[in-house]
Amino acid sequence: MPYGVFSRGGSDRKIGVRVDDSIIDLGALAEPGLLGDIIVDPAAVLVADTLMPLLRLGKEVWSELRARLHEILSSVPSCRQLEECLVSVHDVELHLPLAPQHFVDFYSSLYHAESAGRIVRPAAPPLPANWRSIPLGYHGHPGNIELSGTSVHRPHGQVFSSVDDGPRFVATRLMDFELEVGFVTGSVEGPVTTDDTFDHIFGVVMLNDWSARDVQRFENPPLGPFAAKSFATTISAWVTPLDALQHCRTAAPPQDPPALPHLRRRPDAAFDITLEAHLVRRGVQYQLTKTNLKHLYWTMDQQLAHVVSNGARFAAGDLFGTGTVSGPSPESAGSLLELTWDGSNPLVLDDDDELAYLEDGDEIVLSGHVESTPGHRGFRLGEARGCVVPARTFPGDSQ
Amino acid sequence: MPYGVFSRGGSDRKIGVRVDDSIIDLGALAEPGLLGDIIVDPAAVLVADTLMPLLRLGKEVWSELRARLHEILSSVPSCRQLEECLVSVHDVELHLPLAPQHFVDFYSSLYHAESAGRIVRPAAPPLPANWRSIPLGYHGHPGNIELSGTSVHRPHGQVFSSVDDGPRFVATRLMDFELEVGFVTGSVEGPVTTDDTFDHIFGVVMLNDWSARDVQRFENPPLGPFAAKSFATTISAWVTPLDALQHCRTAAPPQDPPALPHLRRRPDAAFDITLEAHLVRRGVQYQLTKTNLKHLYWTMDQQLAHVVSNGARFAAGDLFGTGTVSGPSPESAGSLLELTWDGSNPLVLDDDDELAYLEDGDEIVLSGHVESTPGHRGFRLGEARGCVVPARTFPGDSQ
Repeated sequence: MPYGVFSRGGSDRKIGVRVDDSIIDLGALAEPGLLGDIIVDPAAVLVADTLMPLLRLGKEVWSELRARLHEILSSVPSCRQLEECLVSVHDVELHLPLAPQHFVDFYSSLYHAESAGRIVRPAAPPLPANWRSIPLGYHGHPGNIELSGTSVHRPHGQVFSSVDDGPRFVATRLMDFELEVGFVTGSVEGPVTTDDTFDHIFGVVMLNDWSARDVQRFENPPLGPFAAKSFATTISAWVTPLDALQHCRTAAPPQDPPALPHLRRRPDAAFDITLEAHLVRRGVQYQLTKTNLKHLYWTMDQQLAHVVSNGARFAAGDLFGTGTVSGPSPESAGSLLELTWDGSNPLVLDDDDELAYLEDGDEIVLSGHVESTPGHRGFRLGEARGCVVPARTFPGDSQ
Repeated sequence: MPYGVFSRGGSDRKIGVRVDDSIIDLGALAEPGLLGDIIVDPAAVLVADTLMPLLRLGKEVWSELRARLHEILSSVPSCRQLEECLVSVHDVELHLPLAPQHFVDFYSSLYHAESAGRIVRPAAPPLPANWRSIPLGYHGHPGNIELSGTSVHRPHGQVFSSVDDGPRFVATRLMDFELEVGFVTGSVEGPVTTDDTFDHIFGVVMLNDWSARDVQRFENPPLGPFAAKSFATTISAWVTPLDALQHCRTAAPPQDPPALPHLRRRPDAAFDITLEAHLVRRGVQYQLTKTNLKHLYWTMDQQLAHVVSNGARFAAGDLFGTGTVSGPSPESAGSLLELTWDGSNPLVLDDDDELAYLEDGDEIVLSGHVESTPGHRGFRLGEARGCVVPARTFPGDSQ
């Protein structure tokens, strides 16, 4: 039962919970008192442009609301009242569920970091010296968080030229996706230890951290990723609550050396969620990779504990990307950088076509699902889709 | 006439303009119609928690409002009505004038970048290979933008230990300030060329980009500054409009190689504003440095053109730090990193006292002023003050 924001025919935006192909309009459900007094001011929280007002209420309310929804869905007498609150997912417009003030993106997959290091810094050790000590991250740009389905213009940027020694300002030639999960929090003010960090996480989205690899390579040292990433980050319309994922918690990979005390994690801090990326090109869908969130070296509780360890404050609705989730095998990498070894080893799509980096018209679909297990029906996370469209015309274009 | 946000005795927050020791309550001024129809909904724009609603209105309104205020202040008949709108700066509480969604900090002083490079990467060329091509910047953390006068806790972070090879999580020992100017924009969506960027800038603040140098050194490669900076950034309560600074525009330093076309700047893109940092220790004030904003290699118009050159969107009230403004002489550097050469050459305060990095209790005061010139009275920018207070107790502290 993921949460999202929807509207019908230009009406106010509302908070809904998705059940199969229906959406429960939570505001409508609250009106006849079906949500009891769980939310003090349902109109302000449930008829809202984003999930932010709900996220401000904190874990206790989130859990009570979820429990109540379960109760309603499984109790027969409320059925008629419930039916009046259902709308078809085909009759609504979905909206960006978050307007995060902060977006932090991590670099927490050992396999991704090692491969990226080998490709980008071949002369240096693949892992930076601090990588096993800190869940490294950087502040991303929250101004271009895009709803799944929004097209993404190929961005301009400065890249090395092979013709002369100076850079040129051109549309990127190395457009890539990054297969990530994003997690969304209530308000958090540090320091918080890893004992408590999961309590601040509301839920997860699928997240594509679009990357212009040629721009990134030129701009990266010494301040890190900036214009190579800030043009677009796509998230799913649906936020799956962390409460729904408790049964797929699993052991995280061992850490060597052990994390410092403020980052020490619970043994079951990982989540067993299958993640996939597909390419849609000229109407045909190709699987590009299949991996699992459980492969992350640094887990979400450690990531959040790190970002607030210096006293930094985060607001309700803030967004954190896990970083590209790559698996242990080359085929389970979470980006084209790795899957094609920087374009040198293109993926064969069919007899006539291959993929090095993304072309205009290519659509990337990121998806995640939890497998069925005894006692638990499997389910899918919301998809994060985005199509690459041609670069904007730019007055200063030197191409 | 800088803009700020004030309240009296717990009343609503209001937008005011400072004239000497008085504040003009702009909402009160609008009530009897003194602002004409410059602002369509004065109550919503001028009785507000931040300058954001005003910043959304854009340059034309900003300029008309300023012209009208000049007219009112210099016309005799309106005097009585004006007097009713004045409050003493001593009778009000000042508030953070901005709640920026985005904070970008640059690295645009050649002198600062060269010295920092020599200190931090002694084996490498002082300037990164991309430095003269891109006004390098990174996304900072807008959640801990602090009003001048707010104390700043010494932050914890991971630092290299001299005892063994692993890092330790401790309160920073190398607490530093960075002397910067911040600029505040209306909403901007790229691409925008440097012909237009100044039109998107509303005004400037003094800005202290507090930095934990030991934390920064360990975390920086490869993703750039993060927890070493995200704990606090102090800005002045007063925002000086760019319109007030037009007469101190001056030639910017030559650029070699010339900037690419989309970053080509106007010849008078620099601002002649004297900047100073003072230390207050045990009640005594010491000047630490004196420099000038005109020394910036990359100017504000170039900085803004760069951040939107990939299509990134920024919102009204967003904040951009120029980066540490260091001058050509060692005494005119904008940080203790440079002034004390990473603490190895402490500043002598008096016979008994010296300064390497900041101690608990030290207060840093950043100020800026425009010198008087024929036809223009000199004036001061708002101060950015902050006192370093002891680190918070932290459960995972390994000290």
